Order: sequence, then C-alpha cells, then structure tokens
Amino acid sequence: MKTPHVCALLAAAALFLPSLQAEGPFRNRDNKSTNDSGEPGYPVPYQLPTVQEVTDTLARIRDFMNASVGTRIVDSKTGQEITDLTNPVETASMERGPDNFSPLAYEMGVVHAGMLRATEVTGDPKFAEFTRKQMEFIGRARPYFAKVAEKYGVDRNGMRPVLQPRSLDDSGSMCAALIRARMAKVGPDLKPLIDLWSDYIATKQFRLEDGTLARQRPQAASLWSDDFYMSIPALAEMGRLTGERKWFDDAVKQVIQMSAREFNPTLGLYTHGWNANNPDAPQFYWGRANGWAVLAMCDLLDVLPKDHPGYPRVMAQLKAVLHGVAQYQGGMGLWHQMLDRNDSYLETSASAMFVYGIAHAVNEGWISPTTYGSIAQAGWVGLTTRVNDKGQVEGTCVGTTFASDHIYYYNRPASVRALHGYGPTLLAGIEIIRMLKNPAFTIEVKLRTYHYVPKDGKTNYHEHQ
Amino acid sequence: MKTPHVCALLAAAALFLPSLQAEGPFRNRDNKSTNDSGEPGYPVPYQLPTVQEVTDTLARIRDFMNASVGTRIVDSKTGQEITDLTNPVETASMERGPDNFSPLAYEMGVVHAGMLRATEVTGDPKFAEFTRKQMEFIGRARPYFAKVAEKYGVDRNGMRPVLQPRSLDDSGSMCAALIRARMAKVGPDLKPLIDLWSDYIATKQFRLEDGTLARQRPQAASLWSDDFYMSIPALAEMGRLTGERKWFDDAVKQVIQMSAREFNPTLGLYTHGWNANNPDAPQFYWGRANGWAVLAMCDLLDVLPKDHPGYPRVMAQLKAVLHGVAQYQGGMGLWHQMLDRNDSYLETSASAMFVYGIAHAVNEGWISPTTYGSIAQAGWVGLTTRVNDKGQVEGTCVGTTFASDHIYYYNRPASVRALHGYGPTLLAGIEIIRMLKNPAFTIEVKLRTYHYVPKDGKTNYHEHQ
Amino acid sequence: MKTPHVCALLAAAALFLPSLQAEGPFRNRDNKSTNDSGEPGYPVPYQLPTVQEVTDTLARIRDFMNASVGTRIVDSKTGQEITDLTNPVETASMERGPDNFSPLAYEMGVVHAGMLRATEVTGDPKFAEFTRKQMEFIGRARPYFAKVAEKYGVDRNGMRPVLQPRSLDDSGSMCAALIRARMAKVGPDLKPLIDLWSDYIATKQFRLEDGTLARQRPQAASLWSDDFYMSIPALAEMGRLTGERKWFDDAVKQVIQMSAREFNPTLGLYTHGWNANNPDAPQFYWGRANGWAVLAMCDLLDVLPKDHPGYPRVMAQLKAVLHGVAQYQGGMGLWHQMLDRNDSYLETSASAMFVYGIAHAVNEGWISPTTYGSIAQAGWVGLTTRVNDKGQVEGTCVGTTFASDHIYYYNRPASVRALHGYGPTLLAGIEIIRMLKNPAFTIEVKLRTYHYVPKDGKTNYHEHQ
Repeated sequence: MKTPHVCALLAAAALFLPSLQAEGPFRNRDNKSTNDSGEPGYPVPYQLPTVQEVTDTLARIRDFMNASVGTRIVDSKTGQEITDLTNPVETASMERGPDNFSPLAYEMGVVHAGMLRATEVTGDPKFAEFTRKQMEFIGRARPYFAKVAEKYGVDRNGMRPVLQPRSLDDSGSMCAALIRARMAKVGPDLKPLIDLWSDYIATKQFRLEDGTLARQRPQAASLWSDDFYMSIPALAEMGRLTGERKWFDDAVKQVIQMSAREFNPTLGLYTHGWNANNPDAPQFYWGRANGWAVLAMCDLLDVLPKDHPGYPRVMAQLKAVLHGVAQYQGGMGLWHQMLDRNDSYLETSASAMFVYGIAHAVNEGWISPTTYGSIAQAGWVGLTTRVNDKGQVEGTCVGTTFASDHIYYYNRPASVRALHGYGPTLLAGIEIIRMLKNPAFTIEVKLRTYHYVPKDGKTNYHEHQ
Repeated sequence: MKTPHVCALLAAAALFLPSLQAEGPFRNRDNKSTNDSGEPGYPVPYQLPTVQEVTDTLARIRDFMNASVGTRIVDSKTGQEITDLTNPVETASMERGPDNFSPLAYEMGVVHAGMLRATEVTGDPKFAEFTRKQMEFIGRARPYFAKVAEKYGVDRNGMRPVLQPRSLDDSGSMCAALIRARMAKVGPDLKPLIDLWSDYIATKQFRLEDGTLARQRPQAASLWSDDFYMSIPALAEMGRLTGERKWFDDAVKQVIQMSAREFNPTLGLYTHGWNANNPDAPQFYWGRANGWAVLAMCDLLDVLPKDHPGYPRVMAQLKAVLHGVAQYQGGMGLWHQMLDRNDSYLETSASAMFVYGIAHAVNEGWISPTTYGSIAQAGWVGLTTRVNDKGQVEGTCVGTTFASDHIYYYNRPASVRALHGYGPTLLAGIEIIRMLKNPAFTIEVKLRTYHYVPKDGKTNYHEHQ
Repeated sequence: MKTPHVCALLAAAALFLPSLQAEGPFRNRDNKSTNDSGEPGYPVPYQLPTVQEVTDTLARIRDFMNASVGTRIVDSKTGQEITDLTNPVETASMERGPDNFSPLAYEMGVVHAGMLRATEVTGDPKFAEFTRKQMEFIGRARPYFAKVAEKYGVDRNGMRPVLQPRSLDDSGSMCAALIRARMAKVGPDLKPLIDLWSDYIATKQFRLEDGTLARQRPQAASLWSDDFYMSIPALAEMGRLTGERKWFDDAVKQVIQMSAREFNPTLGLYTHGWNANNPDAPQFYWGRANGWAVLAMCDLLDVLPKDHPGYPRVMAQLKAVLHGVAQYQGGMGLWHQMLDRNDSYLETSASAMFVYGIAHAVNEGWISPTTYGSIAQAGWVGLTTRVNDKGQVEGTCVGTTFASDHIYYYNRPASVRALHGYGPTLLAGIEIIRMLKNPAFTIEVKLRTYHYVPKDGKTNYHEHQ
C-alpha cells in the first residue's frame, strides 16, 4: 500500500468527519472575566441560553416550515393548483414544496407536535397556525383524493395514506398529530381520518403472536424501534381522546414487549431493530431509533393515567434509556449517528430528540434536574449550531431503513431536507424554555459551568470567597 | 506546550491514520436511480459482489503468490539453485523470493488452506496447483536438508522446522496444510513430516498441568490465542486422517481451556495472551489473535464428529466470539488492529479472518444468515480495497509478539509483505462465493442495503409499492 | 449545512486534537537491527528508560520548580519583599512567581510528596531542599499573616488557609506534606499548622450523615473523587504521626464509603463526583479524579498497619481501579482527559498519577510486575514527551470543578501553568527508577518489546534461536 498523500488524507477526512458549522471557538459570555486562564474557547456556544434566544430559534424554524411546506392541491404534471375539486385529475397531488416535504409524512407529525406545543409554551399563536393550515389542507385533499382514487386507483401521487394506509409509517405519527390538533381545537373536524388510522394500527398492522406491532421487512417478522413512535403516541392519544383503556393497554404493551427484545439493559440503548429469525443478533445502536423510543415513551407518560398498572414500568423504561443515552453525549453536546461510535458523525435529529426527552423528563419531575439539566442544556447549545439563519435544521440523517451492517449506518447522508430534524428541534427548544423558567430549581452559574439545583437544595461556595 | 503547527498535525495524522486506498467515494451500483438523495458516496464499494469479481480477486492473489513464493533449493550465499541434491551445501536454503515469504511459515499453512479450498469451490485447478508445487518443494528439500544438517548442524537457513520442530509456530499450521493436501491427493507423500509435526504438538510442546498448550514466553507459563490456530487445526486434521478420537479430544480440550482463560465473555473477545503468574491482568483485544481463534474453531467444527461430546461447547464458543467480533466491525467493513479501539488502524488479516469465520458459519448453517450475512458482505467489500492490482494484500499487521502495552500494539507496522493477510483473504473470498450461491437464503437488495432472508422467510414491502 | 472548507476542518482539528510534541517518529534504540521491517517508528520514544535519564527528567522539573515557586513575603501592591515581620502590611502575600504557583495550593502538597521521595530514592538532597525552603517560608509567613489578619481581616491575599481553613482543598494535601516533611526531619516545626489542618478535616469539614467527607457544592450534598486526596493522605499521615488508630479508621472509612458511591465496578473507574440528590446520575470518568483516588489509596496503604481490618478492602479497591485504569491506556502510553473517550485529549496529570500508582503498586508487591510493569513503562515514555527542556510539565488540565456535562470536561484548557502535573510526574519518575532497580523481577527486552518477568520465572526463547 502506498503511503497515502496528504491531499488524499484530507479528502478522506472531509469524507468522514462530521460536518461542522466550525465558526468557533466560542467564548462563554457568562464568564465576565476576560482574562481567565481557566476559560477555554469552546467549539459550540457553551453558555446559558435565554428564553428569547430559544424562542427566536423556534420562530426561525417555523418560518422556514411555513415557506417550505405546501398547502395547495396541484397537478403534479403541470405544477398548477387545482381549484375545482369536483373534477378528479389523475395526476393530482399535495404540493411538496422546494424541499419535497410531504404534508402526510410521519416526520410531519412531529412537526405538528412541536408547533402545537410551541404555541402552548410561548403563547405565540403563529406556531399552531402552521398546523391549522395543514389540517385544513388535509381536510380539503382527502375527499378530493377519494374521487381521484375511485376513478384512477389509489396508488398514485402519495394519496394512499389518507385512503388506505398500509403501514405504521402511513398512520401512527400523523394520527397522533390530528388528535392533538383536534383536542387543541386547531383546524377542522378530521375524526374520520383519525378513525381510519387508529383502526389501522389497532387491527390491521402485522403483529407478532403476542401482539407486538411488527413488520414483514427486512425479515418475515421484524421489530423496528422506530415503531415506538409510529404507534404508541397514536394509541396513547386515542386513549386520551376516547377515555377507553384498551388504547392505553396496547400502548403500554408495545413499550414492554418491544423493549424486551430491542433494549440492551447493560448499555441502556435500543438496537435499531430485531428479527424473530435471529433474536440474539449483533446490535446497531442507531441514534434516531433511540430517539423515537424516547419521544414515544414521553408522549405516553404525558397522557397515561398514573394509576394505570403499566405506568411504573413505562416510567422505569424511559429512565433507563435516558440514563443510557445521557452517558453517550459527545464533547460538543450532540450525539453520534451510532451512539456508541465516536467516529460516526454527529447527528441532529437524534440529538434533538434526546434534548427534548431529557428536558421534558426534568420539567415533568420524572428525573432529577441535577446532572440531567446540565446535559439537556449542553445538548441544546450543540443544537443551536445546527439551525442556520434560514431556519433550516442541518446535519440530520435522511430516511434510514433497518439494516444489518455498519457501512450502511455510518454513511447515511445528512441533509437539511431530512424533515426528521425539524419537529424534534422545535420540541427540544420548547422544553429548554420550560427549563429556563422552571421554578422547581435554580440554574447556578458557578466556576465556568452550570448546576441545576433543586429548590430545596442549599449550596455553599464559601470556600471560594 | 507550543500550539502544534498544522504541518506537525498533518504529520501526526499521517502517522496514526489507518492507511487507506482512498479512491472513493464509491457509488452503490445496485441503486439504479442516479438521482437519489438517500444514496451516499461510500468510502468502500458498498455493493453486492459478483461471483466473477470475487473469483478474479482470488486469482490475482494466487498469481501474486505464484510469482513470489519460491520453489527452488538455493545457495543462500550466491542465490544460485542447487540441483545436485546428493551434495550437502552448508548455506543451502529454501528460496524466499523477493518478499521473503518462507515456504515453511505458519502463515503459509493458511495460504494452502485457501488454495485447496479455492479449487474445491471454484473448480479451477490452478489454486491447488500452487499447493502441489509447494508440497513437492518441501518433499524435495527435507531429505536434502537432513543431509546438510547432519554435516553442518540443524540451526541454519530456516531448515530446522522440518527436522527438529521447536514450537507450535514451526509445526501446527503447516501440519494441518500437509494433511489437507494429502487427503485432497495433492502433492507427494509427506506422511513422515505429518507424523513429526503432529507428534511434536501431541507430546513435545510445553503444556500447563491441565494439558493446555502453552509457551514459556513471555512469562514462564503463557497462553497465546494465536495457538488456537497453531495447534487445533493440526489436531483436528489428525483426527480426520487417523480416525483416532484422542486427537479430537485434545483439540476440544484446547478450545475449552484456552477460552476459559483468554476469552472475555462480556465483550465476546479474546485477549491476545494470558500469563499464569498474573491471570487477571488487563487485556489486549488484538484483532488477529481473535482471528486465529475463529479460524481454528471453524476448522475443528468442520471435521469434528457431531456426536463428539465437545461439539456443542466448541459451537457455543465459536458463536460467542463471532457475536462479539461482529459487534465491533467498523464503518468501512473492516476491523481495527485493537478491536475495541477505533483510533487504532484498520487491519486486514484479522478482518479477513472474521469475514471468513462469519461467512463460513453462515454457509454451514451454524449461525443465521440474517444480520451475519450482511456483516460478512460488508467485511468483504472493505477487504476488496486492500487487494491491489498486483494481487498483493495490503494493510496487514506484521508478526506481533504477545506484549503488554498498547504503544506496541497500536504501532505495529502494516505491510504487503506480512504473509498473514494472504491466506485469510483467500478463505474469506471463497466463503463469499459460497454465500452468493447459497440456496438456503435470498439476498434481497432493498432500500439501498442488503438483507439475507432465509429461504422460508416471506418478506413484504407492499408499504413501499 | 455547507461543506466545511479544508481550512475550517484543519482549524477544527487544531482545536480538538490533543496537543502533541510531535517530534517523532522515534526509533526504538533497544532494537539493534537498523534494517528490521518489524520495527516501526513510534510517536513516543518507546524504549527502556535508564535510571540516569529518569533522574535527569526529575532534576529538570525540580530546577523549574525552584525557579518558579516563591520563597519571599512580598507586598502584592509593589512586589517588594517585606523583611520587617513585626509590621503588618495590609497587602502582604506569599510570593507567587511568574506562573502564579501558590505555595499553599493542594497541588503543592503533591510536589512536596515528590521532592521528599525523590531524595529518598535518588539520594540527592537537592529535591528535599526545595521542600525545606518552602516549609521555612510557611513557618515564617504564618505568624506574620496572623498579625496582618488581626489588623485587616483574614480574607486577603491567599493567607486564609493557614489561619482559618474552609475546605479540604485548603488543608488536606498540604497537611500530609507537612507531616511527611516533619517525619523526614525536613524544615522547621510546623506542628501547630498540622494540628489546625488535621482538626479541620476531622471535625470541621461538612460530612454526610454516615461520616463521608462531602461538600455543599455543586449540590447541597456532593462527593468529589478529588477528595480522596484532599483528605485521606492527611488522615493516614496523622495515624502514622500519632499512632492513634482513629485516623486510620477515618481514612479507611472514606475509601469504602466514597467508593461505594463513586466507583463503577463494571468499568473499574471513578466518576468525578456524586450528588446525594441524584445518586444514579450519568457518570463522568474524568482522568484526574481517578488519579486522586489512586494516589490517596497508595498513600494510605503505605502507612496503614497491615493488621488494620480495613487493609484488605483498601487493597482490593486500589487493585480494582488500577485494573480499570490500565485497561484504558491509549496508544501513546498516556490517558485521555475522559478515560473512556478516545476523542478527548491526552492529559498529563492523570497519566502521571496512573504511572505512579501502577509502578508503586508493582514495586510494593501489591500487583504483579507482569503486564503492569510494561504498562507503567509505556506510560512513562509517553510522559517524557510532556516534560520540556525547561522542566515544565505540559498538557495538564487546569483546575476543574465537578460539572455535569461533557462539553465542559472535553474543553478544559491544558497548560504548563497547571501545577497539578508537576508533583505526579515527579512521583511517576521516582517509581520508574525503583522499578528499573527492582530486584524482584527482570525486564526482558525481547522481540521489540518489554516483559517484566518475576525473579522465579524461567522463560525460554529457544524457538527463536
């Protein structure tokens, strides 16, 4: 083997290094001494964020979403809007916008979760307005698509999910979003679609014999950790909407049974997926898979009655993965594409999900602000380097299938067009705002770092006075 | 400390980075869409290899071996061939060729294993022909060397192993090769040498009190994981050759007793060696040491009667290390010099041994094709970047002693002249060919990656249609 | 995200890479063959150090300390020496020298431990002379500071620790140093200060209810692994000085009770700290925290009566952390800032503490020279690249608080002005000298590496002859 030339090395480095917005080093503004040899330059803006800054970041993302996500039914052949909804056009579709964001994608369900929550937490109605417009769009498109499908068939132009869902990806995340919008009285009555999707999950999706939601790919019977989010939030929200316990029971069952197969309790991490035909296979600790599990368990615990017999087990499982995930946070506050591999790139969507999950659990009192508050803050300052001036969220791994080798996972492209990063970053910021305002603890800025001290905690720095 | 200059940093990087044939990025040819934002450029040619491609790679290695490994008895002083074998010349030796490859080295035993198997699997007699020529060479050299030794002493010019073996390195690997050649009816009758070597292992080599094969270096009683290969294949093949159970018993005993001391069941990895005088020492997960264990257990299971009482334990042990090793595969399909250290270089010989071991176990039905098939394929595509146009195998760690610090292991040179990489790469390619033709499963190319689906597995991608 | 420009990448690399004295590659001088393809160039001078070389390194550090650490009482406003000690000057202080090294800092306690031991081991009185001058300085300053404090208050110019200590940092390390000096008959009678400090530890410092020494920061009840060293050596030396068992009892109790909360037995590492209000928090395996624990337990075992009931438990705990730490040594012999993170920088002070601890335990016969001797030697050759021509110790992490996020820890500055590196490097070198002279084992230089063979061990390399 020839000794590789320096340029080849640099090319190789450019190929494999996580893409960084390397604008640092950043000085920590909270250290007033400008001549402190103990104060480093940081690769990320290590500092206490302000509510205003976080809110501005959220608004930037919202504005980008507003500009990029379509609201019109168009003729996909001509790009022209279709306004006469009595006349089915074979090539009709929902406008995808310049970044090809689908209004029906499961990633969009997370965006809605973020937008609705953002209005709740910031009081600014402009966030929920995004969701309202989308709900109206869906409400407008669905009956029209039904006509198109009747005439031309259902498998065209992405309209199938609202007519004949065939997967958890088609149904779960958006179903949860529709229920949340409905309960927040945002947008039109979409109950029939809620019923279609929730019924799909409850009765149509392939399951293992013990009732665990599963897929017939890549093997004949496979679990995906992504399906935590593709099913549990919808089941949980159906429980909230209907008051029927069966929905909660199913949601809890999924947490327990998926975790039994996909969770590595030693590491505190989920493997991306599990195949019934090789249950003890080597594992792949893909970041976002863990993020989906975290999000789903948070969503479930938000609405699960505290006296439900599954509550303590779901809580214990959430705590276990948050502990595991926290242990793997990188030196820039972000997490790696493969959580246990620090030579894989720093990935935004998973990082945002973890910041959300940790901060949410802190804010809800599920885990201690001690340690976890600092970890969430560090994660957020890492994330701020990933939201650019246009409100795009950078560095997110694109759609990723359940694979069985590390070449695949290490090399998934990262893109601002991966919609998966947007909703989680909104959610993360919202919980950081809540954390900054949380009266249950004080954030002490001491000796160049941050300590989240519970209200009843009396600290003493007299040795430093 | 001065801030290091950029050039120094680059120099440091050049020093420590794994040497890469950085010709990528590679496009996956199996993705027919040329405009797919989900398709990355890969640092290795991530794709389904064809039987023809693998066969070509094997042929290239064989041709290089043919050109580089000597077949003549020469006067080491003059380089001239010695043709009069009645006249003992003091400086006689076996020709070493331009790369100093010894025809008697333990590494050559693995080359023969690969050549013999390659002819079996590809049907091309040219592979076994390499072994035939070498066996004749050894058959010709040995009686002549006996005469030289009688006159001038045995410790000269590398002739000792065939006359008075003193170590497992001298005997085990080549003994197995000779038996395999004999049973395949390749080359002349070398039974006396088989007897010399197998008797050395069985009765002369130093052992612990419980019978475990050991060395008196670097400590007074030391085990080496390398000795899995330096003894077990020979013992196993003697069992096959003679039908005597005692050989199998000894082979099984070595697996069990070496594993009890050298295997870390938590990580699923072998430490390089074990010293009786400090049994709980810190461990060194050197790649090739694990490779030798994998190879040896595969070889044993290939010939061990299924009703031998040790069969299930050897099988369980092989599965445990394959699981552990698979968990550490790097993002380019190769493994690191120190398996648990991703800042050590990517090493070829160990990677090849693991690809062989995993693929062979899949092909034999010992482990599931699910997951392991993809891992083996990923390993192979990584390996293909290490076989150059000349048929040289690049990036192999040179001979490495059982040491006790990580400076030593991290900095072992890698060289095309390290013969250790050649045999394992042949073996790896052979099993990939078998895998590509294996009727027990289908290799589904779906969503930019590869899934090995057992014959009876019915997958369903209708959600993507 | 824009593709980062190569320069940005280099800048990023410069920011994050460990700062290296990249003068290598180094050839191993112990390999006499200059044409050995098995001999690499090393990034550090991988070779057997000589007693003379190590002694020279120690002398260089001593000379730098002598030049940099003050011995005069000065007016901090004018910098002028104060010679009239009957007249209290409000701005009086102990001279800090060009590098701002405080004669009372806890880091200086380790320097004294090293200087006293260096004279013992090398026979050169110049090392202890440094300590004698400092003890006289403290003896001179303290009564004068008492007068200044009486007139102007105690909280000024760093004089508080010798008058009214408020922390373990103020008292423990220097208390141990004063006792050691006293027992070695070095310097004046400082018994009153020994009493003040030991009484502070025994009766004034905040403790948990079970008696574990603790702090009220960063949380209301926090343990710091640093406090192993800030208390245990002083308690142990008080036991030796007074012969009273209560001091040993307290020291043993601290080891057991701190370890129960801060030690991860799976990894064999200490987390930096522990908060009573979130005992199961994610952990931070900061190198130096582990170093303090190692140093403190060595110090305790050096003086703890072998028949003390706690002796076996302390010994077992020391062995457990030495095993854990040894497992994480990097490929240049040094350890990383965060022990389990090979993308954090290589840190000198922790590395020196580990080299000391491992070599000391070997020399005392607590652990086997086998494996551990090689690890200590590798650590030392790494350390030699950190002691520059001026006798400065490079690459030491500056003062670091118990924090709760990895951004903080990864980015702590490293500086020659971090006094924490000096004492441990002295101690490490001293034990290497003892190891090089240790009659209990032979250091065999074989096959390009080093083997520590116990006296009764008979090795045999005949297979290589």
